[in-house]
Amino acid sequence: MASDKSRVMVTCTAPVNIAVIKYWGKRDEELILPLNSSLSVTLHQDQLKTTTTATISKDFTEDRVWLNGVEVDVRQPRLQSCLREIHRLARKRRSTEDKDAPGLSLSHKVHVASENNFPTAAGLASSAAGYACLAYTLARVYGVEAELSEVARRGSGSACRSLYGGFVEWNMGERADGKDSIAQQVAPESHWPELRVIILVVSAEKKLTGSTAGMQTSVETSTLLQYRAASVVPARMAEMIRCIRERDFPGFGQLTMKDSNQFHATCLDTFPPISYLTDTSRRIMHLVHDFNTHHGQTKVAYTFDAGPNAVVFTLEDTVAEFVAAVKHCFPPESNGDKFLRGLPMKSVPLSDELKATLGLDPTPGSIQYIIVTKVGPGPQILDDPLCHLLGPDGLPKPAA
Amino acid sequence: MASDKSRVMVTCTAPVNIAVIKYWGKRDEELILPLNSSLSVTLHQDQLKTTTTATISKDFTEDRVWLNGVEVDVRQPRLQSCLREIHRLARKRRSTEDKDAPGLSLSHKVHVASENNFPTAAGLASSAAGYACLAYTLARVYGVEAELSEVARRGSGSACRSLYGGFVEWNMGERADGKDSIAQQVAPESHWPELRVIILVVSAEKKLTGSTAGMQTSVETSTLLQYRAASVVPARMAEMIRCIRERDFPGFGQLTMKDSNQFHATCLDTFPPISYLTDTSRRIMHLVHDFNTHHGQTKVAYTFDAGPNAVVFTLEDTVAEFVAAVKHCFPPESNGDKFLRGLPMKSVPLSDELKATLGLDPTPGSIQYIIVTKVGPGPQILDDPLCHLLGPDGLPKPAA
Repeated sequence: MASDKSRVMVTCTAPVNIAVIKYWGKRDEELILPLNSSLSVTLHQDQLKTTTTATISKDFTEDRVWLNGVEVDVRQPRLQSCLREIHRLARKRRSTEDKDAPGLSLSHKVHVASENNFPTAAGLASSAAGYACLAYTLARVYGVEAELSEVARRGSGSACRSLYGGFVEWNMGERADGKDSIAQQVAPESHWPELRVIILVVSAEKKLTGSTAGMQTSVETSTLLQYRAASVVPARMAEMIRCIRERDFPGFGQLTMKDSNQFHATCLDTFPPISYLTDTSRRIMHLVHDFNTHHGQTKVAYTFDAGPNAVVFTLEDTVAEFVAAVKHCFPPESNGDKFLRGLPMKSVPLSDELKATLGLDPTPGSIQYIIVTKVGPGPQILDDPLCHLLGPDGLPKPAA
Repeated sequence: MASDKSRVMVTCTAPVNIAVIKYWGKRDEELILPLNSSLSVTLHQDQLKTTTTATISKDFTEDRVWLNGVEVDVRQPRLQSCLREIHRLARKRRSTEDKDAPGLSLSHKVHVASENNFPTAAGLASSAAGYACLAYTLARVYGVEAELSEVARRGSGSACRSLYGGFVEWNMGERADGKDSIAQQVAPESHWPELRVIILVVSAEKKLTGSTAGMQTSVETSTLLQYRAASVVPARMAEMIRCIRERDFPGFGQLTMKDSNQFHATCLDTFPPISYLTDTSRRIMHLVHDFNTHHGQTKVAYTFDAGPNAVVFTLEDTVAEFVAAVKHCFPPESNGDKFLRGLPMKSVPLSDELKATLGLDPTPGSIQYIIVTKVGPGPQILDDPLCHLLGPDGLPKPAA
C-alpha cells in the first residue's frame, strides 16, 4: 500500500470464470441469492483478466468510476450496492478489531478505473471478473480482510466465483440473509495441470436478452428451471466435484455438456423464450460430439453461457488436433494471423479419417477467433506503481 | 365398395395433424404407447392430405405397397405391425359379429398405393397422415368397424390423431396392453370456424435426427422430459381443452407456444442434444412475439414439430396482416408467384408502426413458401373410381 496515509492507491487483477454447473435464476433479486449452487473453472489471467485501480482521497468531491477509459454512472444500483457492502465491512472491522486501521475516513470519496484485456462486447463474462476485481481492490484499499463473496455477489452473482483460482463452488446457502451464500475453492489451479480451455468467439448478432432480465423471466415462467434447480443440480454438484477431484475428464466433460444443454433448455422453456445458441453454436456442439465419436471417448466438451460463444475443455494432448478440426470446419475469413490467440501450440495436420467423420460443410467466418488458455489463479495485487490505471491526480492515465 | 367380391378396391384420404400439446417419447416402444397425452388440430385436406387405395385379390402373390409411385419394402416392421393389427380386428369381427362378412379371405394378399398432395420431404408430418389413411382404408377393405387408434398408432404414434377432424386428444391411457391409449375428438372442425393455420416452410439443411430415434434418446437421457410428461402435461391438457371449448385464442395461442418451446427444450436436454429449430425458426418466433407485442395481445401463435418449419395459428381477420409481416421479414427469393399457397386471401399493406416494431433485417430466401389452411375434417372415402391410385390390375396407375 502507498505510504501516504491521505492517498492510498491499490491495483489488482481478477480472472474470468466459466461455469460448468450453471447459475441461472435468483431466489432473491435484492441480495442476489441463486436458485441453485453452481461450480466454475477460473481461467488464466494471462489471457483474460480485469485490472482495477482504486484510490480514496479527502480531496475527491464525489465517487467516480471509469470502465475501459470511459466514465460510467456511479449511481447504478449494483455499483452502489458493492460500495455500500465494502463500507459496511470496513466499519465492522474498525469497530471490532482495530481502532487504528489505516487512517482512512470512510467519508472520503473513491475513484476507480477498470480495464479488460479482452473485448468487453465479446460476451466473455466481463462483469464477473469486473465485480470480483472491484471487491478485491476496494477490500485492500479499506483494509478489509473478510470473505468477499457478498461484496462481489452484489455486483454480479457469478462474480463471487472469480474471487478464487482453480475450481470454485458457489454454495447457494439456505439463510434468508444470504450470509451462507458464498464461494469456496474446490481445488486449486495446480490440481489438474493438463486441463486446457479453448474459447471459440462466434461472430454474433447483438445479444437480444441480457442475462439479468433473462434469468428473471426464466424464474417467473419456466417450470423446468424450478425443477432443475430443486431436483437436478444438487446431485450434479456432487458428481462434478467428484470428477474434478479424481481428474476424470470423460465424466467432467459429459456433465459439463449436459449442464450447459439443460441451462439452454430452461432458457427455451422461458416465455417468451430466450435463445442464446445460434446455428454456429449448434455446429460447434455437433463438431464436439463428432470428434468424441471419432475417438470413441469424451476428449473435448463444450459449455455455453448467455451468448453464442463456445468454451471448450480438453486435455493438453488434444488441443492441437481439436484446434485443427475447428479450423477445418470454421476456416478464418480474413484475419488468419490473429485467428489463433493465447497459449502457444504446435500445428498438426488433420487425419483424413477425422475429416470424413466431421463431414460438416466448412462455414468460413462464423468463428471470429480462438483463445487457448488454461486454469488459473484468483485475484492478484500488483505492486508496481506503473500498473496503476489512475494517475497521482486520481484521474485515468492517458492510454499508452 | 366394389360389387365384385373377389376384388374390392377402396380409396380414402386422411389429414395431417399438428400437435399443440406435444407427443415426445414412448413408455412402450413395441406398442407405441406415449409418455404423455397430446392434443392436435386436424388440418384441412384441401391443402394437405394423403390419398390411399387398397385392394385385395386372390390373384396377388404377395403384399405390395407403393408410396408416391415408388414401391417400398413391405417387410418394414411398422407396416407389418399395421397389417397384423387390421387382420386381427377383421378376424375378431368375423368370429363375433358376422359370419358372412364381405367374402374376403384374410389369406388374400393386399396391394396399397399412397400419395401425398404435398412434398414428403418438407417435414409436414406425412407419416401421421399416411398411417391414418392406411388404417382407415384397410378397415374399409376388410369391413372392420372398430376404433382404429391402435392400428394407426402402430404405424406412427401421432397417426391416431389423424383419424378424426377438428381438435383431437390422444389419451395416453394407463393399461399395459395399450387398449385405452386412443384418440378422440375434443371438438369438431365446425367448432371454431375463424381459426386459421399458416405453415411457413423453412429452407432447411437435411434433418439430422429422425423423430423415432430422437424421442428414444430423449426418454433415455432427459430428466426434464420425464418431469414434463409426469408433472406438466396433465394440467396443460386440461387447460388446452378449456381454451378450445371456449374459443379463447390468447389462451390457446400462449399455451401452444409454451408447449412447443418446452418440447424443444427437452430435445436440447437430450444427450447428445437434438436441435430442430434453426436461426430462421428462432427469427419466426421473434416475429410472432413482436407482432403480438405490437397489438398488445396474443393474435398469432407458433408451434414447431421435429423440424424447422413453423405452423402458425391465428384468426381469419389477422391472416392478411401476419402474412404481410412474414413477407416483409422473409421476402421470397425467386419463386414470388408460388410463395403464397392455399386459401385465397387479400393482400394488405403493412403499417409503418408494425414495420418499425418488427425491426428484423429481412433475410430473403430463408422461408421457401407459405401455406394458408384451416381446421378440417377426418378421413374421407372417395366413391369415384377415377380416384383409385391402383388400376384394375392392382398396380399403380401411370402418373397423369
